[in-house]
Amino acid sequence: MRPRSLGNSTRGLRLYSQAAAHTPATPNSLYYNNMTRTSNDMLEERVLQKRARQKSAIPAAWHLPKVPSPETGFNALEFIRQSTLLSPKEREITETTDAKILLDQLAAGELSSVDVTTAFCKRAALAHQLTNCCTEIFFDEALEAARHADAHLAKTGKTLGPLHGLPVSMKDLFRIKGQDSTIGWIGLVGKPAVEDGPTTQVIRRLGGILYVKSSIPQSMMMSDCYNHLFGQCVNTVNTRFISGGSSGGESSLVSAQGSIVGIGSDLGGSVRIPAALCGVYGLSPTTSRHPYEQSGCVLDSPRQSIVPSTAGPMTTSLSSIEAYMSALAQIEPWHFDPGLIPVPWRSELCTTKKRLRIGYVVDDGVVKVQPPVARAVKKVIAALHDAGHEVFEWDARSHGYCYDMWERGILSDGGEGARKMSTLSGEALVEGMLVGTEKDLMNTSELHKLQFDKAMYEREYLQRWTDSGVDALIMPVTPWVGYPPWTWVKSHQYVGYTSVWNFVNYAALTMPITTVNQTEDQGDEAWRDHVPRNASDEFNHKQYNVDSVEGLPVGVQVVGGKYGEEKCIAVAKVIESLLK
Amino acid sequence: MRPRSLGNSTRGLRLYSQAAAHTPATPNSLYYNNMTRTSNDMLEERVLQKRARQKSAIPAAWHLPKVPSPETGFNALEFIRQSTLLSPKEREITETTDAKILLDQLAAGELSSVDVTTAFCKRAALAHQLTNCCTEIFFDEALEAARHADAHLAKTGKTLGPLHGLPVSMKDLFRIKGQDSTIGWIGLVGKPAVEDGPTTQVIRRLGGILYVKSSIPQSMMMSDCYNHLFGQCVNTVNTRFISGGSSGGESSLVSAQGSIVGIGSDLGGSVRIPAALCGVYGLSPTTSRHPYEQSGCVLDSPRQSIVPSTAGPMTTSLSSIEAYMSALAQIEPWHFDPGLIPVPWRSELCTTKKRLRIGYVVDDGVVKVQPPVARAVKKVIAALHDAGHEVFEWDARSHGYCYDMWERGILSDGGEGARKMSTLSGEALVEGMLVGTEKDLMNTSELHKLQFDKAMYEREYLQRWTDSGVDALIMPVTPWVGYPPWTWVKSHQYVGYTSVWNFVNYAALTMPITTVNQTEDQGDEAWRDHVPRNASDEFNHKQYNVDSVEGLPVGVQVVGGKYGEEKCIAVAKVIESLLK
Repeated sequence: MRPRSLGNSTRGLRLYSQAAAHTPATPNSLYYNNMTRTSNDMLEERVLQKRARQKSAIPAAWHLPKVPSPETGFNALEFIRQSTLLSPKEREITETTDAKILLDQLAAGELSSVDVTTAFCKRAALAHQLTNCCTEIFFDEALEAARHADAHLAKTGKTLGPLHGLPVSMKDLFRIKGQDSTIGWIGLVGKPAVEDGPTTQVIRRLGGILYVKSSIPQSMMMSDCYNHLFGQCVNTVNTRFISGGSSGGESSLVSAQGSIVGIGSDLGGSVRIPAALCGVYGLSPTTSRHPYEQSGCVLDSPRQSIVPSTAGPMTTSLSSIEAYMSALAQIEPWHFDPGLIPVPWRSELCTTKKRLRIGYVVDDGVVKVQPPVARAVKKVIAALHDAGHEVFEWDARSHGYCYDMWERGILSDGGEGARKMSTLSGEALVEGMLVGTEKDLMNTSELHKLQFDKAMYEREYLQRWTDSGVDALIMPVTPWVGYPPWTWVKSHQYVGYTSVWNFVNYAALTMPITTVNQTEDQGDEAWRDHVPRNASDEFNHKQYNVDSVEGLPVGVQVVGGKYGEEKCIAVAKVIESLLK
Repeated sequence: MRPRSLGNSTRGLRLYSQAAAHTPATPNSLYYNNMTRTSNDMLEERVLQKRARQKSAIPAAWHLPKVPSPETGFNALEFIRQSTLLSPKEREITETTDAKILLDQLAAGELSSVDVTTAFCKRAALAHQLTNCCTEIFFDEALEAARHADAHLAKTGKTLGPLHGLPVSMKDLFRIKGQDSTIGWIGLVGKPAVEDGPTTQVIRRLGGILYVKSSIPQSMMMSDCYNHLFGQCVNTVNTRFISGGSSGGESSLVSAQGSIVGIGSDLGGSVRIPAALCGVYGLSPTTSRHPYEQSGCVLDSPRQSIVPSTAGPMTTSLSSIEAYMSALAQIEPWHFDPGLIPVPWRSELCTTKKRLRIGYVVDDGVVKVQPPVARAVKKVIAALHDAGHEVFEWDARSHGYCYDMWERGILSDGGEGARKMSTLSGEALVEGMLVGTEKDLMNTSELHKLQFDKAMYEREYLQRWTDSGVDALIMPVTPWVGYPPWTWVKSHQYVGYTSVWNFVNYAALTMPITTVNQTEDQGDEAWRDHVPRNASDEFNHKQYNVDSVEGLPVGVQVVGGKYGEEKCIAVAKVIESLLK
């Protein structure tokens, strides 16, 4: 594994601040490349205009009178719960964590879509003001769609689809007709999508109501949700910390309960890492079980073609993951999305009463995980073992080799795609992103060799999985538990605990298990005496300070294997029943 | 669509001849590039040795005493039927066209695998001597496997798998441990596979018995089954004509009933074209429903990555296609092959009693099909219509655009893979193959653009397919009915009637419908007055001479849509019952 190039400047970039939200900060001219002062002014103007439009999309009545500074490290969820802006009914609706409950009430006409949509629009507006989690905000369109849903049900007695009337949020990546899909690039402002993307089309067919898109890091290749256009998104649980990435806007929004089902995307952990950091659930499905944007649709620029990206739900409950995935399959989306396979949702696989055979990984040999992360895995494994399930250590020695292939694949376009996007406006690339440089560019022969090695690895892994008879693996999500913004820049970030499953294309679910505890998570002798294996490992070891991360959520991954979405859920249910 | 480059020499290459089979012809020194006389001698020596080893793999008692020259245009199937080398029992076994019958008898112990395998080995040996259809021949290993199957059944009362004891042949592409996979390249002689490839592994798990591999054209990018190593394979039905390609050895072998289930591969029609030319059945499945060699496994050299290749069965009956595909899914091969999806064989979809909605294509607007081909399609459509099914013309106007994308994808490696293979030995590339030159080489940006355009086309096609409510399409396989060897070289070959389904990855089945008839297939006024649209169309029009192709088989394609393997079979059953 190669240490990540960190670029050549260490300019001080400010945190998202409340000042920036209400009177957007003038972007530092250092953010931009080779621009004259006039060009910088023009860029700043575009950013200010975009942020002003975003702010004006929130009704004045929903503006919070006062927001604490994110540097104070407040809990945005608790803040929202104490706000008087939400009516009791809106609070009740949005405090619901099981989407199935709302869906049943919507389908029965016991709740109107207008009421549910209004409640989530308002709560999303509050969440956004506290964490800066949204990009596009379009409440008017949402309420219009909600009125249509209510009228349809009243007139026909039938729902629009299995997600009838339910608000669904989406990462900025996904195209929604008439809305920008800037993906955080200033150069893409003011170029609204001319049509819905595949995921959007499916959400509409399901009867879901779209109301906001959520923020992502520049290029989507970081676990820190910052871009020059919208600024820094922070963690709902503790605003001094990042919400992760690249679906970090979504994790903040969902954990603030401003959305009951949010759609993220995952190429190396981009659903699972932010979900874990914010203490919610996130499923990264096998690619062909959930629609995605088509290759090249959004940026229409070169990109890597080695590792497939996938889209999946982020929720505050396991049952919402199941309800959403089940709803998705009900409309048989493979009849209009050529990327999907004709496999129905197999509800019978979502519950198990058998004695499970569970593999676990605490340390993949590349980066030793921080004490709370190890504790979370061990806690789950102990509970399973005590309940009579079979547990065994899974051999993860090949994961470092896999990470090397994954990383070479990710960087194989030599960064051309990101450069093209930054060139559109002249904005600077953010340091430390997993974006290639010219030396990473692969020629056709090198790509074919990597594809061949990948095929061999996938085949061997599947054979081992099948031969082992394993039901699922339990393992860490990230090796760390909390980063302040911009820690990523110098972290030599390692995402091998999650990216291995993108590489072999297995279903993996993140679920919350515990929170950091100063008493339990000091780290034992093995942790204190740990001799760093590489730059990533060294950073991860030094960065840990239990006192600063007290109370942050810690999750685990439940890996269900290829097409193992239902298996993930079945095993997670067993874990939840044991830890209850 | 671009006219195909035909190279710069028109050397006279001889037909495979009986003389060549028994005393292999010295390859013309013009076959080789930039070689000294000594190098040519060495190459010739390698070819002679390989052919001698091939010949020695056939027991002397199975050698035909006399074989007519292929130029006489005899029918090899009839020749075999009249041969006294086959015992009555061997004749009975090999004349069976429904694999299900043999499988049931094998499973019940009413037939031994040794008897069945011996019969097919012998018949394959005869077929090979008459058509030059085989590459690797390994009867001893086959009989050893057959004895093992019989012993297992006798001892345990259980079959080895759903293809227990049944001989299965394979195109040379597929790796079988210990056997060469030359794919017709002299430079790959004497490099036996160190392990079974994915398809071979599956056939063994199914309990099938492997006994021969079958010939292909150089580079597999022609519909004429010739390579310098094994020479020319000819059509079983009439040996003056080619058996097609690239699975042309398999079509000759299967149509001679030297195999009851043969596995071919298809990237643009390579199962379907040879199957149609030899009057047998061939299924080109959606890629993820049948195992294939891994990317880069065989040649380990650059190749195009735009159009996925697939593998599928070639048989003498529709029921054998169904029996094989059903058997394949029974072992749930997706648990060990990461390229496969967890979709069982849906037998309930293989029969239909509903009123069908059938689209048809007679002319795709690029190359007008020869009269017998048009007649075959119209005959099927008339029968369906007369039986009360709904038929309508399918809009194929986009197929020319699709062919252009397909061809650019196929050529996108700039021919590097083929050049690398020819360089191994110094042998010359065969003219007229669909192999790129330097001007066709695509850079990453161009590849991404093509992938994007492909994704858009697939999406639009699937939407149109679903919206139309079509059950299947009936259409031509090739625009022509019979080529003598090497006609391909100057034909500006167009395979757009088949390649469109590889491009969008739909299941398509070829089934025999009729034979060329001098009375019916003279061509009407529209045919005679046809003004050529392009070089391919011009060649196809001029090449047709009904007198020379009398009696050759003519088939149609039944296109079942994405994952529509079962639908292909259901509709083909209806057609067979109507035409009976």
